[in-house]
Amino acid sequence: MKRDPTGWLRPLDFKRGCIEMNHGAGGRLGAQLVDELFARAFDNDFLRQGNDGACLPAPPPGHRLVLATDAHVISPLFFPGGNIGSLAVHGTVNDVAMLGATPLYLSASFVLEEGLPLAELRRIVEAMADASRGCGVPVVTGDTKVVERGKGDGVFIGTTGLGALPAGREIGGANARPGDVLLLSGTIGEHGVAVLSQRESLQFDSAIESDSAALHGLVAALLAAVPEGAVHVLRDPTRGGLATTLNEIARQSGVGMRLDEAAIPVLPQVAAACELLGLDPLYIANEGKLVAFVAPEAADAALAALQAHPLGRHAARIGEAVADAHRFVRMNTAVGGQRVVDWLSGEPLPRIC
Amino acid sequence: MKRDPTGWLRPLDFKRGCIEMNHGAGGRLGAQLVDELFARAFDNDFLRQGNDGACLPAPPPGHRLVLATDAHVISPLFFPGGNIGSLAVHGTVNDVAMLGATPLYLSASFVLEEGLPLAELRRIVEAMADASRGCGVPVVTGDTKVVERGKGDGVFIGTTGLGALPAGREIGGANARPGDVLLLSGTIGEHGVAVLSQRESLQFDSAIESDSAALHGLVAALLAAVPEGAVHVLRDPTRGGLATTLNEIARQSGVGMRLDEAAIPVLPQVAAACELLGLDPLYIANEGKLVAFVAPEAADAALAALQAHPLGRHAARIGEAVADAHRFVRMNTAVGGQRVVDWLSGEPLPRIC
Repeated sequence: MKRDPTGWLRPLDFKRGCIEMNHGAGGRLGAQLVDELFARAFDNDFLRQGNDGACLPAPPPGHRLVLATDAHVISPLFFPGGNIGSLAVHGTVNDVAMLGATPLYLSASFVLEEGLPLAELRRIVEAMADASRGCGVPVVTGDTKVVERGKGDGVFIGTTGLGALPAGREIGGANARPGDVLLLSGTIGEHGVAVLSQRESLQFDSAIESDSAALHGLVAALLAAVPEGAVHVLRDPTRGGLATTLNEIARQSGVGMRLDEAAIPVLPQVAAACELLGLDPLYIANEGKLVAFVAPEAADAALAALQAHPLGRHAARIGEAVADAHRFVRMNTAVGGQRVVDWLSGEPLPRIC
Repeated sequence: MKRDPTGWLRPLDFKRGCIEMNHGAGGRLGAQLVDELFARAFDNDFLRQGNDGACLPAPPPGHRLVLATDAHVISPLFFPGGNIGSLAVHGTVNDVAMLGATPLYLSASFVLEEGLPLAELRRIVEAMADASRGCGVPVVTGDTKVVERGKGDGVFIGTTGLGALPAGREIGGANARPGDVLLLSGTIGEHGVAVLSQRESLQFDSAIESDSAALHGLVAALLAAVPEGAVHVLRDPTRGGLATTLNEIARQSGVGMRLDEAAIPVLPQVAAACELLGLDPLYIANEGKLVAFVAPEAADAALAALQAHPLGRHAARIGEAVADAHRFVRMNTAVGGQRVVDWLSGEPLPRIC
């Protein structure tokens, strides 16, 4: 007899089964959930070590480490273009990549609500595993907890990413300088509009899909195309959208910005949906876009590199950083005026990522 | 004027204020919560980088990495001997330490429920920061999300720990061998009983406090006292207690075990509480204890090293690993009989960590 704690349990019923409190109690059912779902979906040598943590090789010589973490609480769990599982991978891979590091490993922790259909959980975990394989960034360790019905919201996923950063590479939100060219890797607003439309059961003429994607390949292509040191800041404009991200960078770097509204790409169906909903695409979350602050002499090469990558086809030069003690983000509007693109204040778009 | 997004907001009201959805929406209020609470409490050079991830030095030459992650969903949030904040630090530091690694950095992600009093959140975050400083393991990066009232349970905390593991050190759940001596670092059951008593509003004659503590110092003392390679397995018996942990190790290593019930230390007030509640201390969670599987020739030195450390004063030799194709954990009972210490099956003790 093999002393397998799940040996005398029926296999999990992924058609009709639901998460029970016992799945989180540290006994047979918990071990079964790990074995039959998580370990199977994410399977890799590190996870197979089977300890409460994973032993990993050191980064390549001369590299530092990057650690980034996210809690994902998106509602609804499924949306056009992805679900919380794929989003959790992309979001954290992108946070690591935005520092110029190569994402290497992910950890994942799940807070499951009692009553969650196992079929839904499996779809989420499999999407997460697919996204992880697609990125080449394995989930090497994890944890699962269960909370009572009404004390959670289906699934929350915490992901942490670990990456390797080459010596001498200094990319960060505090490094923008007056004169830097602002590049945006593509159209804005799809993720937020896709989630909102799903949440409000809105039907638009053309389907709007989330842009959720892992950007480490795009970052690698960008960095390979310009001299080391030419890219000063990279950031993915997620929660709060492009406007919030640019204000954060203005604050950290102590610069102002001048944007050209006509240059900021927005899909027509997103623009139409935003008009209908009274939203400004500048404040809508993206999950597959980046902004880059690039030294002016490298801007053309950087833009060409972005545009040559499938995830940067619609990349555009959208403005520049300027000296401004007030750290204002100003925009020349499409109709010839000028406005300040301010911090988001009252209006909430919560549970978007 | 400094372009500070929180400059024209009143300071957070930690006496009467509560978490609002806007604190998670990626605007001024979110930045304020980070600035006035999280960044202030956890303050360190890495966190001050202010990016969506932290740049960290490489591990010392010749070291590998260890990555461990936990979701913490304990109910109630406050319990005798700690709260979810201190627990989140200790739990993850311990998972890293149990592989023989030195814990270096933590990440933290928070899922906050709308309506959570800011006073409670501050107590939790400050306890977490104190625990982090006490361990010498800084929180270097983080994330905060807010969910609607009734979609969470006050606070959930996801923590991930990163550690450095010396070359050649191989400690893990699969490495137990027949003949290994089982050492337990102290009394069992305090954490689970402390949480349960708080949850059920039970009053015991003597207060029972959680044993929540960081064990990396104890591990370092143990490893320093014996030859490299003499400690085969280290694990902290948390969820599911000592019985579940030993069964997990038996399964991973393909060995059986023989325990001596009379040798397993249990505080009298914990034994009494367990009898009252109909619980077996073997299945109750601990948060400041470890079991070590040690080569027999090193067992005396290992036990002495544990006992010489403040967190191992009551350490004891509780049994041994034996060859057993069935991987049974058997126990000689205090009354002279023998029983199988089985996996926890039906009985749930959820939300204990």
